[in-house]
Amino acid sequence: MKMKTLPYRDGFKMAADFDEKQAGYMLWPQRPDNWRDGGKPAQRAFTQLASKLSKYQPMTMLVNENQYKNARSMLPVSVRVVELSSNDAFVKDIGPIYLQSTDGQQVRAVDFNFNAWGGLVDGLYFPWDKDNEVAKKLSELDSINYYESTLTLEGCSVVTDGDGTLLTTEDVILSEGRNKGLTKEVATEQLKETLGVNKIIWLSEGFYLDETGGDIDNMVSFIAPGEIVLSWTEDKSDPQYVSSHRAFEVLKQETDARGRHFRIHKLQIPTPLFLSKEEANGVDPINGRLPRIAGQRLTATYTSYVTTNRAIVLPEFGVAQDEIALEQMKKYYPDREVESIPAREFLTGGGGLHTVVLNVPGV
Amino acid sequence: MKMKTLPYRDGFKMAADFDEKQAGYMLWPQRPDNWRDGGKPAQRAFTQLASKLSKYQPMTMLVNENQYKNARSMLPVSVRVVELSSNDAFVKDIGPIYLQSTDGQQVRAVDFNFNAWGGLVDGLYFPWDKDNEVAKKLSELDSINYYESTLTLEGCSVVTDGDGTLLTTEDVILSEGRNKGLTKEVATEQLKETLGVNKIIWLSEGFYLDETGGDIDNMVSFIAPGEIVLSWTEDKSDPQYVSSHRAFEVLKQETDARGRHFRIHKLQIPTPLFLSKEEANGVDPINGRLPRIAGQRLTATYTSYVTTNRAIVLPEFGVAQDEIALEQMKKYYPDREVESIPAREFLTGGGGLHTVVLNVPGV
Repeated sequence: MKMKTLPYRDGFKMAADFDEKQAGYMLWPQRPDNWRDGGKPAQRAFTQLASKLSKYQPMTMLVNENQYKNARSMLPVSVRVVELSSNDAFVKDIGPIYLQSTDGQQVRAVDFNFNAWGGLVDGLYFPWDKDNEVAKKLSELDSINYYESTLTLEGCSVVTDGDGTLLTTEDVILSEGRNKGLTKEVATEQLKETLGVNKIIWLSEGFYLDETGGDIDNMVSFIAPGEIVLSWTEDKSDPQYVSSHRAFEVLKQETDARGRHFRIHKLQIPTPLFLSKEEANGVDPINGRLPRIAGQRLTATYTSYVTTNRAIVLPEFGVAQDEIALEQMKKYYPDREVESIPAREFLTGGGGLHTVVLNVPGV
Repeated sequence: MKMKTLPYRDGFKMAADFDEKQAGYMLWPQRPDNWRDGGKPAQRAFTQLASKLSKYQPMTMLVNENQYKNARSMLPVSVRVVELSSNDAFVKDIGPIYLQSTDGQQVRAVDFNFNAWGGLVDGLYFPWDKDNEVAKKLSELDSINYYESTLTLEGCSVVTDGDGTLLTTEDVILSEGRNKGLTKEVATEQLKETLGVNKIIWLSEGFYLDETGGDIDNMVSFIAPGEIVLSWTEDKSDPQYVSSHRAFEVLKQETDARGRHFRIHKLQIPTPLFLSKEEANGVDPINGRLPRIAGQRLTATYTSYVTTNRAIVLPEFGVAQDEIALEQMKKYYPDREVESIPAREFLTGGGGLHTVVLNVPGV
């Protein structure tokens, strides 16, 4: 049911990734103008991730009707398959942002406007009409009451400590393709009252060449209130160097909603990875042009991981840094299993592990 | 998850209509070659029924993606709307048949083959591919384990007392369009082991001119073990006279699985109702021919009602008999509310109230 009130006043706040979760959702990849080779390699990768996550929490794969039987045949029985139409597969961006009551007992959702990361200005596909219904449909499927917001944003464009603080990027929230004419001041107020937070910290930009326009989840992740990991590189020749260091300077000086300084863990990104010619050529052209080009850089970072109650699932890129990141994360999450999974196929479709899993808070 | 065993041996039996239910499902009507005027009058009627039932149990309307927004806007918030594709709207026929464990604590389902009441021989439409997936999809949606059967039958072709007895009709189960070559003896054994019953009582036919070929639910309904209502007429000029009286003779002589004789309540059908020219002309032609003809008789009977834990919903046909049937049913169900609802639109699409609601047993 749609709420006519405001989350902040109702005592609801955005749930953090590390908060307790009751279930997880994914969307099934299929569009051949985004996923190479008719989506088959991505479908295998999504199957592997959903299978792994289903060891830790109930998992549901949401699929378009025409892919139901294929998805059901590829996925293990531990993953539930449910029809729910969408235009693409980035459920954390497309689906609702979940809120919790202060006592953690109630869950609500927010349905923001979604326009494929920039609509007709610089969005990634058209139409996005089915995506834009996913938040409402999913709330209804779980009988979760939801708020509607007029802001255009995707779930991965905001991260929270679950304790009053929200991090986001100007490049996304204030982009012409999403919220043309919106000022930072008005956006700050709207984010506060809609996501139930007290303080917004703005970074200017996200990860280098992120095709979302710079969603924050490739840059920063909260481990706990006051404690974050930050995508990092010491290589001055890497264009990512500037935005990582700029973010560090902002976060080092800022305090959170409770007045705490952040403990920042630098999480070294892998050596740059590039799309191969074979990968680029496996994608259907749009209006005669390939949407992806051989040699384009992939937005590879370990910061895009999945958090469940008992485990963390990190991306593997097939480089030496994988092992270092894994060991590092084990220290940050001493109470959870830390596992990893090959993630390249998620990246070839423009996403990361964090973007393709939507967890519902609650016991 | 699909079970590889047999319900009978696993201690599961088909739930009766009067058994306790946890929730109800309906499918949204939309096909213009079955429902007049683009389905709009039927959609209003389904909305009215779902609204009424939602007073007594959680109700979910299952809809094709292209009708989601329309259904959501027409239905009250008390009815959940969930995407689930189908070819038409008779969910009790199309969906699973639910089973319960002997202690009533566990629910399972059976997925029979469905071919639109007779496939290419005498079925009502083609294709029926989406309908045939509904039982599996709905079981999966509710995380209910299911059995598969090779028999072709629809949910309304069998009624049970929940106590070992099953009633069905030869015209349906043994029809060429459904189970060509199947003998009564083999069918009897298969029904026993698949629906967990000990005794099958066969009627030769169902209701006069029922376009399903004669599903039993328009003829007979169990009020309790050993106690049934039977569609009845004393009018010898009515072609229904023969089948009602033939059914009475069979049921009078038979005993149920526990050796009880049946207490049979004769439920007088309304005076014959016929499709109007306007109603017939509102349906899209199939291959150039109207699927329904002005003046054709509607399968109107009060036996096609809906049972919930706390209420019975009877059809109203706008005739004097409506009130008599209502009073009669109040006596048979002294512990439940007995309400009624205009039912003509359901009949113009070939169904009745009992065919459009699927209740899930359980607490």
